[in-house]
Amino acid sequence: MGDPWQECMDHCVEITRKAGKMICDALQQDITVMEKSSPVDLVTETDQKVEQLIISSIKEKYPTHSFIGEESVAAGAPSVLTDNPTWIIDPIDGTTNFVHRFPFVSVSIGFTVNKEIEFGIVYSCVEDKMYTARKGKGAFCNGVPIKVSGQEDVRQSLVLTEMGFKKDPEQFKTMLANVKTILTIPVHGIRSPGSAAVNMCLVACGSADAYYHMGIHCWDMAGGAAIVREAGGVVLDISGGPFDLMSRRLIAASTRAIAERIAKEVTEFHVGRDDTDGV
Amino acid sequence: MGDPWQECMDHCVEITRKAGKMICDALQQDITVMEKSSPVDLVTETDQKVEQLIISSIKEKYPTHSFIGEESVAAGAPSVLTDNPTWIIDPIDGTTNFVHRFPFVSVSIGFTVNKEIEFGIVYSCVEDKMYTARKGKGAFCNGVPIKVSGQEDVRQSLVLTEMGFKKDPEQFKTMLANVKTILTIPVHGIRSPGSAAVNMCLVACGSADAYYHMGIHCWDMAGGAAIVREAGGVVLDISGGPFDLMSRRLIAASTRAIAERIAKEVTEFHVGRDDTDGV
Repeated sequence: MGDPWQECMDHCVEITRKAGKMICDALQQDITVMEKSSPVDLVTETDQKVEQLIISSIKEKYPTHSFIGEESVAAGAPSVLTDNPTWIIDPIDGTTNFVHRFPFVSVSIGFTVNKEIEFGIVYSCVEDKMYTARKGKGAFCNGVPIKVSGQEDVRQSLVLTEMGFKKDPEQFKTMLANVKTILTIPVHGIRSPGSAAVNMCLVACGSADAYYHMGIHCWDMAGGAAIVREAGGVVLDISGGPFDLMSRRLIAASTRAIAERIAKEVTEFHVGRDDTDGV
Repeated sequence: MGDPWQECMDHCVEITRKAGKMICDALQQDITVMEKSSPVDLVTETDQKVEQLIISSIKEKYPTHSFIGEESVAAGAPSVLTDNPTWIIDPIDGTTNFVHRFPFVSVSIGFTVNKEIEFGIVYSCVEDKMYTARKGKGAFCNGVPIKVSGQEDVRQSLVLTEMGFKKDPEQFKTMLANVKTILTIPVHGIRSPGSAAVNMCLVACGSADAYYHMGIHCWDMAGGAAIVREAGGVVLDISGGPFDLMSRRLIAASTRAIAERIAKEVTEFHVGRDDTDGV
């Protein structure tokens, strides 16, 4: 028997490419922006249209599969991971970048069975980079194998994270204190490209050595997590424990040594879970 | 009489493209890294080779012109701006990015006469984007005219800055406090791509609305300043006063309104000057 999920993955690449084209077309037009939970949490018509395109295309082909999509969840759909084959979709990862035409914008899809990620696809559409990873079969960018840097020394590392305004003063303070702590190690630098999925791909292809974040969602992580692992990297919880897709916490790194060092340096704050706390 | 400096600009584009090719070739090889002033201030053989290529090519054609080049200054050459036609050169803007193969790496050249910038060229070589601006004649990316976003409302803006470890605790603290202050406005977000010259080009083409930085050098700013201005943006001192190329302080923004708001929010710290304090 062949790989039961390869056909799903092939379909995923195809629909992700179409979605990316829709995003690139939208970047040529006027962009109408709406606020979600706060003035810094943005959504556009394109986020919603792209998610509809992806979900309707997959539903037609795989009517029994489940979905967790950023915009569907925002509209009230449940965000609970089951054993059923599940497509976890971020139609535009980096919506703020999209709004500003900042060049890191991606479509991110992870596919789970029995709660395990079977494959991940991230299409950074402005760069035209299609990152793909099937469990046990390696990671690729535009068909070319990619691998992490292999860097073990955190002092030689380039670290990615994202900094946004947070209404909770304690969270905001801790987020900034963590930036100070990481810089003080010292590392070579911190970069903030503004797309979680692209950040994970930058770790996967060796352009950065670590990415940490608290407060992201399963749809930001599912595609990229497969890609980092298959590129030889590690994905951990922010505590240094096992990665939990629904925990909203992540360290992705080139090596376990760097991931564990980041875990040791970073102070945690409470962010809730995708599957129990709503979004 | 035609434009007396157009020939210099044409030559500059040609040599910048050659330099970019040399950098892209080097990215395919092993990269040997040396530390300059600290573990986070890096230089490579490629920085030095690229600067030599650029300066020797220009010297041959314009033997009476002056030069301020990052690596020449590091090696002891003076960093003083005179009225003589002067080429201000950063062979690799974003050396840390280059070391990590992080995709924002550029060659930046500004050309001054009577201390005024006549043209600026920034070649973001991994992206293959050649940004050019001749005073009074507009700004271009790969020959296509570019312009700033025109955003006036800082709350709708995407802001660029860079965060690095600083040995001076007061500078370090103030740098981080400024990040907090800017995020609290709130703005849409902060991004840190890691190349000053690319940051200025991102403002020039409307992908970001502001970039502020204290502690950069004239070779980081000279090329990009021309490009931002010619794209319709403004370049100011961090205080909100007139831009001074040798001051190591910069706000580049889509509009005066945003530049002045950033100036009002940011707390200054002492960084010295390029022309009196050494580097």
